[in-house]
Amino acid sequence: MSFENSGGFDRMWADLAPLGRDATTGGYRRFAWTAEDAVLREWFRGEAEQRGLEVVPDRAGNLFAWTADPDTAGPGLVVGSHLDSVPDGGAFDGPLGVVSAFAALDLLDRATLRRPVGIACFAEEEGARFGVACAGSRLLTGALDPDRARSLTDDSGTTMAEALAAAGHDPAALGRDDETLRRIGTFLELHVEQGRALVDDGAAIGVASSIWPHGRWRLDLHGRADHAGTTRLADRDDPMLALATVIQEARAAAGRHGALATVGKLRVRPNGVNAIPSEVTAWLDARGPDADDVRAVVAEVGDAAGSTPVEESWTPSTVFDPVLRDRLAALLGAPVLPTGAGHDAGILAAAGVPTAMLFVRNPTGVSHSPDEHAEEADCSAGVTALARAIEALT
Amino acid sequence: MSFENSGGFDRMWADLAPLGRDATTGGYRRFAWTAEDAVLREWFRGEAEQRGLEVVPDRAGNLFAWTADPDTAGPGLVVGSHLDSVPDGGAFDGPLGVVSAFAALDLLDRATLRRPVGIACFAEEEGARFGVACAGSRLLTGALDPDRARSLTDDSGTTMAEALAAAGHDPAALGRDDETLRRIGTFLELHVEQGRALVDDGAAIGVASSIWPHGRWRLDLHGRADHAGTTRLADRDDPMLALATVIQEARAAAGRHGALATVGKLRVRPNGVNAIPSEVTAWLDARGPDADDVRAVVAEVGDAAGSTPVEESWTPSTVFDPVLRDRLAALLGAPVLPTGAGHDAGILAAAGVPTAMLFVRNPTGVSHSPDEHAEEADCSAGVTALARAIEALT
Repeated sequence: MSFENSGGFDRMWADLAPLGRDATTGGYRRFAWTAEDAVLREWFRGEAEQRGLEVVPDRAGNLFAWTADPDTAGPGLVVGSHLDSVPDGGAFDGPLGVVSAFAALDLLDRATLRRPVGIACFAEEEGARFGVACAGSRLLTGALDPDRARSLTDDSGTTMAEALAAAGHDPAALGRDDETLRRIGTFLELHVEQGRALVDDGAAIGVASSIWPHGRWRLDLHGRADHAGTTRLADRDDPMLALATVIQEARAAAGRHGALATVGKLRVRPNGVNAIPSEVTAWLDARGPDADDVRAVVAEVGDAAGSTPVEESWTPSTVFDPVLRDRLAALLGAPVLPTGAGHDAGILAAAGVPTAMLFVRNPTGVSHSPDEHAEEADCSAGVTALARAIEALT
Repeated sequence: MSFENSGGFDRMWADLAPLGRDATTGGYRRFAWTAEDAVLREWFRGEAEQRGLEVVPDRAGNLFAWTADPDTAGPGLVVGSHLDSVPDGGAFDGPLGVVSAFAALDLLDRATLRRPVGIACFAEEEGARFGVACAGSRLLTGALDPDRARSLTDDSGTTMAEALAAAGHDPAALGRDDETLRRIGTFLELHVEQGRALVDDGAAIGVASSIWPHGRWRLDLHGRADHAGTTRLADRDDPMLALATVIQEARAAAGRHGALATVGKLRVRPNGVNAIPSEVTAWLDARGPDADDVRAVVAEVGDAAGSTPVEESWTPSTVFDPVLRDRLAALLGAPVLPTGAGHDAGILAAAGVPTAMLFVRNPTGVSHSPDEHAEEADCSAGVTALARAIEALT
């Protein structure tokens, strides 16, 4: 990718392209507190250093690269996003916001900035490793209990506490971080759109109005392990049948309630070809414009499968700061749109930080996939829009 | 477990109990050509050595412990089974046949044996690591192509060739092993029953009549990865819905055709909570008294899901040697019964080796599960029956 008036965008984009990429799928596997994550953090620190920004981690391990000391000259304007990915995710979800933030700063005369600007890199935004989305920003605001966070486990049984310690971050430090929150006067996150509303609007850039209420639930479907070749159909207690019900009812209930519901992750035990499973675990992602509808979907899926969904995370509807939203929409001549995707911006908004989001057009709407894409011209427009927003908000 | 007139059964059983056992599930994870497998092979060699038996591996890495040289005094009678397990399998499936073989030999005066007796330990009987059941015996008889075997991969992408080499076995040696086959005049496998026919018959021991035709198929269900929170239901191409159809149709078609069908193993890509999967792979195990019915079940599942099942293995109906079967049934006063489970005995029988099987009663019928069980008295009856059979057949 290469475009004019982009600050260092194209060089940064090229530097990031190979990091954490799977050669077979072409997708990214950038999971929190892994070796890949350490390389990405090193990249972030390097970009900050080149620009004379001071990197200050918070208690959760989120990174902030500051143009000036927010404790004396602040509070500041924070821009940024995250670098982690879903399994086999695309290149844009997260990194576009971080790279655009550095690039936007490159377009500005920093002497004209009237307050400190911080570039943020949030940890474990996707929740791909420990199952809680926006874990870094939730820890920062206190929305995620530190004891619960420390005991979350990844698929190999490693706890977040162990992963943090292995990555050189003190797990005892977790907890609401008021010192960092005081530094964030305003938060502005640029993100690739994960739908096609901007395509329909014919606009390169949009401003977020709100984030739908959304959550994740786990359904533990119990059965009895047995031999696939000798156990009569009538004698079986096979949890795969309940899984089929979960999958079908999730789609049907979402349709009835005007919501979205997805079964994207499964775990089968023991997962042997000739063994009736003892347990199937299914994760349900549900969202929609109305919280009651979302909760009804989850309840109906649980009822159909005879299993009580365990809530792993829940985020109520988040409405972004209306003054900021209208100001940015007017400044950029950009349409205003809601989204079904959760973001760190939503967590900070819910904690009372004046917050806004900019979306960059996605020609197919595809996200969380190696096919995720944004055109160069639209990325360039995003950098310019972000630079103008920083100018206006400092 | 401890019982009289059992040879060294109870000591051997206690020695094997902790090997490859998962502390959390209580089940066994004894997979071919792993570190656990090496320990089990060491145990087998140790038991053979204590009894002055010479251990001779075949080209596939199956082990044979001989009382005398089968090349000069043979062909011999081979008894035995396997030591590997399904994931989280029970203690009996496989090991009961190996331990009972050593214990039966302990009960006999070896000077009275008129031909060599070999105790067999077959490799990768469950196919839990590389997906092909009875891989060791299939390689021995030539039923599994050595090139195909070498290129089979486990879940981490390791090929069987790499696993063999890492375990110190030459992968180039694979191929039909006529030298070993010439040594096996008769094969007799004792195995825990994996159903409840002997419970219904009120008998501790049974003799196998036949093995149902059975096979394994893989269904690759393709979709398009996308964001779970932003992709409209109507825009989705979600392979989970096809999976639900596979699961339900497998059960329904099996019921219609008087067969068994099981979806026991799944792989989801990318397997993220907030990502619509790009691909779901389901493995279908199907068996029944009639081969046409089994094939009809598989075809109907494929048709319903819009996916062509890929055959990973297929074993036609195997009828055990009728003369041997009737002789053992009369000798032991034991009922004759068919089974839906595949065994190395079935592979050898299909290759023309006169073969028989003894089953030991299973009070619940449960197998491929930590709950798999056989009573001490029935295991003791199994050892005695095996000793009497060895006496009669040598």
